[in-house]
Amino acid sequence: MQTPWEYRYAHRMQKMGSSVIRELLKLTEQPDIISFAGGLPAPEVFPVEKFKEACNIVLDTLGAQALQYGTTEGYLPLREMIARHTARFAIEVTADNILITSGSQQALDFIGRLFLNRGDYIVVESPTYLGALQAWNAYGAQYISVPSDENGMIVDELEKALRIGPKFIYVLPNFQNPSGATLSLERRKQLITLADRYGVPIVEDDPYGQLRYDGDHLPSVVKLDSDMRGSNGGHYTGNVIYLSTFSKLLAPGIRLAWVIAPPEVIRKLVMTKQAADLHTSTFNQITAYEVAKGGFLDEHVKIIRSVYRERRNVMLETMDEIWPVETRWTRPEGGMFLWGILPQNMDTAEVFKQAIERKVAFVPGGSFHPTGGGKNTMRLNFSYSNPENIREGITRLGILLKELIAAQKN
Amino acid sequence: MQTPWEYRYAHRMQKMGSSVIRELLKLTEQPDIISFAGGLPAPEVFPVEKFKEACNIVLDTLGAQALQYGTTEGYLPLREMIARHTARFAIEVTADNILITSGSQQALDFIGRLFLNRGDYIVVESPTYLGALQAWNAYGAQYISVPSDENGMIVDELEKALRIGPKFIYVLPNFQNPSGATLSLERRKQLITLADRYGVPIVEDDPYGQLRYDGDHLPSVVKLDSDMRGSNGGHYTGNVIYLSTFSKLLAPGIRLAWVIAPPEVIRKLVMTKQAADLHTSTFNQITAYEVAKGGFLDEHVKIIRSVYRERRNVMLETMDEIWPVETRWTRPEGGMFLWGILPQNMDTAEVFKQAIERKVAFVPGGSFHPTGGGKNTMRLNFSYSNPENIREGITRLGILLKELIAAQKN
Repeated sequence: MQTPWEYRYAHRMQKMGSSVIRELLKLTEQPDIISFAGGLPAPEVFPVEKFKEACNIVLDTLGAQALQYGTTEGYLPLREMIARHTARFAIEVTADNILITSGSQQALDFIGRLFLNRGDYIVVESPTYLGALQAWNAYGAQYISVPSDENGMIVDELEKALRIGPKFIYVLPNFQNPSGATLSLERRKQLITLADRYGVPIVEDDPYGQLRYDGDHLPSVVKLDSDMRGSNGGHYTGNVIYLSTFSKLLAPGIRLAWVIAPPEVIRKLVMTKQAADLHTSTFNQITAYEVAKGGFLDEHVKIIRSVYRERRNVMLETMDEIWPVETRWTRPEGGMFLWGILPQNMDTAEVFKQAIERKVAFVPGGSFHPTGGGKNTMRLNFSYSNPENIREGITRLGILLKELIAAQKN
Repeated sequence: MQTPWEYRYAHRMQKMGSSVIRELLKLTEQPDIISFAGGLPAPEVFPVEKFKEACNIVLDTLGAQALQYGTTEGYLPLREMIARHTARFAIEVTADNILITSGSQQALDFIGRLFLNRGDYIVVESPTYLGALQAWNAYGAQYISVPSDENGMIVDELEKALRIGPKFIYVLPNFQNPSGATLSLERRKQLITLADRYGVPIVEDDPYGQLRYDGDHLPSVVKLDSDMRGSNGGHYTGNVIYLSTFSKLLAPGIRLAWVIAPPEVIRKLVMTKQAADLHTSTFNQITAYEVAKGGFLDEHVKIIRSVYRERRNVMLETMDEIWPVETRWTRPEGGMFLWGILPQNMDTAEVFKQAIERKVAFVPGGSFHPTGGGKNTMRLNFSYSNPENIREGITRLGILLKELIAAQKN
């Protein structure tokens, strides 16, 4: 007889319906659509030749090691390189503070697995990163949203949230996905002080920190936390779990990211990873190390910055020029996204349908708000499309918005 | 103040203590030890040159695609190749039946996540694969052990287990890890019939199926299940979830495996993977496809078979020659492991300590028995060490066992 599979699935799967976003993104994949919906890096800046060179060196010199099973923690020279890289920002960190993961999404999943019992609360910014919500929904998380503005999470609202007793606070301080906002220095300091006062850990997700196009670098939350606690004999042992990735600096197709955390947390994450997938591809780790070592990464990031800065500028200039006065948007100092805000009574999910007809796409903002709201907002990606398409697509969207707003007034 | 992390972890982490095996394996990593403890493929047979060639072709022709984000299901040409490969064994299967995972461990984890509520029962062979237990312990699984002999799971004992109401049956039919036993054709048929009668799905884990050194290939459980149900318009829609991997056929360092299941189960696993790590490395998938296509895989597997057959033979010959008559062992027709059985009153965990002093290592069998027993058993790997070391190490072990058995008699 046919197996009735749907009655066999675990309770957790009830929260794992196919996401609205996933369905939307399918619509945006038609080749003639100018899509600002995805979150893809520009493939033009992938260091393909450097990768080829590195693959050849790795397979010539370390072939058997690169193709063999590896340690769960990750390739030691790569972890040491990340530690040195992190130490440049004056954070005391060693390889024992670092776990390599198969992309940051895996780090988010492991954090959920390590910390979350069904019903546990997490403090998030509103809006927040959808991938984190997807990861943690599988563990039955509940969310406490703290509103944000152009300077990130409104920390004055945080204390009320902390008194609910959340498992941790999740924050993307630099050029946030989706809003593009950067948490101000003042708020970063308030955040670590409040988190320490209530004994609630912080998960700092920082995929874009190095992709800054204007303004000054701000110290990361983990750095400020480290400073507040003072030296601890070389290891970082504070209150922050920090995530970053090679997806935006080199290429996402190699699935390489890292977690920085106190060694005791890393040890638990290593056990989690051991049970989840043994380890991240040895070949990719050794190859990425070969690519990144010797200063290549710093040089390459300069190229990415210059390409993305131009694209962001074209998007902002076109919006300034074309978009109706009733609309607003963020002016991100880095990253890959900006955030459009329409008049309160407009619904971007409806706008989306008409935008698709005009062959241009974005992500309606509602999904990024785990506790509701944001129906009049939208996320626009500026890293993937070339300047010409950005100008054309943003113009089409601007004209559509003008028409819709004019129609409302009649 | 210092964060008391241990009070913040989820309940599931209580079952995730550092495994005994993990601690043991650390002892076996000293360079002068001949270790039969690990489960590593022989690095000498990794197709390093072929990989190099493939990396160059892929980066020259599909560089931007290979380094970009990919689909969660996996690279379509790779899934289609696996479907064709599977169809050779007369199983009706399409790319919609296939999900690419980052190694089989990830497939085991996803199956746990998809099916297991805390306290759910799983029917396993005793002994069974430790990695599966590690994956499912995280979801609070309980185990019902069905004893096995040299023909695999004793299916006559299965019916009682099925009446407990397990979520699924887990079986490794070919050259099982750890025992080396192969499930007989008769028992395979009984297994699918019983599973169908009770409506309990089967998870068939088959990493070694193609590594057969003597005897005839037996049809996989998924194939027999497919036959029993008859044609279903191209897709497989039966009662079995089948796992296999490139780790043993090409190289484990690329972390590539696959799941074959009814399309509705694949769709749920895709959602699970989306939340867990987005997708498996695009670069590794395209490169593995480039390596494996055009018949290379079949040719390469012949080389692996000939190397491992020799090593298994040397191990068996040395055991026949040296090991005391009070000991027994399996004679696997393939795979990477054989299973030693000492007199009932001996404890291989104790033998292990003395073996380490003589610079030889194995895995004590107790850990492979989730509901207890097997203290007098041991797992020996024959794929990793060269024939000379196998002869030397197995001789040392045999002499130690002789001494220990003689001492018991005095």
